[in-house]
Amino acid sequence: MPKLVDHAARREELAAALWRVVVRDGVDAASLRRVAAEAGWSLGSLRHYFESQAQLLRFAMELVVRRVTARVAALGPPEEPLQTATSLLHQFLPLDADRRAEMEVWLAFASRALVDPELRQLRDESHDAVRGVCRQAVGLLGAAQPDLEAERLHALVDGLAQHAILAPGVTTPDRQREILDAHLRSLKTRETAA
Amino acid sequence: MPKLVDHAARREELAAALWRVVVRDGVDAASLRRVAAEAGWSLGSLRHYFESQAQLLRFAMELVVRRVTARVAALGPPEEPLQTATSLLHQFLPLDADRRAEMEVWLAFASRALVDPELRQLRDESHDAVRGVCRQAVGLLGAAQPDLEAERLHALVDGLAQHAILAPGVTTPDRQREILDAHLRSLKTRETAA
Repeated sequence: MPKLVDHAARREELAAALWRVVVRDGVDAASLRRVAAEAGWSLGSLRHYFESQAQLLRFAMELVVRRVTARVAALGPPEEPLQTATSLLHQFLPLDADRRAEMEVWLAFASRALVDPELRQLRDESHDAVRGVCRQAVGLLGAAQPDLEAERLHALVDGLAQHAILAPGVTTPDRQREILDAHLRSLKTRETAA
Repeated sequence: MPKLVDHAARREELAAALWRVVVRDGVDAASLRRVAAEAGWSLGSLRHYFESQAQLLRFAMELVVRRVTARVAALGPPEEPLQTATSLLHQFLPLDADRRAEMEVWLAFASRALVDPELRQLRDESHDAVRGVCRQAVGLLGAAQPDLEAERLHALVDGLAQHAILAPGVTTPDRQREILDAHLRSLKTRETAA
């Protein structure tokens, strides 16, 4: 099936170009025109793949999901529970340029999904997937009230990520690690006071 | 100064119309045209006040700041510390339709400020003001490591608020209260394990 193979390879080319634009210039700069230029394609060729900015944003979000999933899958065998939980959750914090770009795509995508019903399924799946990883982390630490603690941890991680984008000089990568570490340690060593 | 008084009254009229549109139809629906229609003004008259959608969004955000500030100022005299901290932080969670609309304005505004430098000062002031209230709450509870705990609490509150907008069927008002309560109790009764 040479046609299909070609199609998949072309999409990978596009994904790589899109990601370069997002990391370098931000998600709002990733217009159809800019991504076409980055890939060395005509705008018309790109339009065979994406008819609208919303479709391109969805493709960017699919790329984020793929990237995070691959990193989680590539984590080594489980270490000590606190270490494993930390490694898992670090995949969802903007600790470097790539993860920062991922978070910007997520925020733009989630915001756009509020007014575009077609994006909601992927948004909800992504939100639920992060919740699942938080539940896994909470389970590793043996926290009491795992449902409540998974939701609390998830809110903390998403809030930290948001602050890292808004105030990168305050919520630095080191500060994010420090706060997450304090939170996970409190889950491990104590029960919730509720 | 009749002109000035008139101007202030007109801005209040606009603020009320803008808020009705935001609560009823969402922040993305609050276009210049829609707000003019809601206020019973011509689009041209509205343009004397706001030349662009970004200026209208900034006005909406100023309105949010005014609303939250007024609610915080109207809180009764301090009760038991946990109760006081809870009452303060409830002003920043989307626990009803008005606070939900405030949070939607904040998310849209913060997202827009990422690409519009003119909005950053108000965004940073708002972010810092919430951090200040978190620091106050942490102080009331006598938590160890107040700076770290203020930042952790702030991230939790903003993350919960974000989830309440994204997944209102899961992160319900009751659930938000329950998670905040568990967090504040853990600050009050235990030191951070970090």
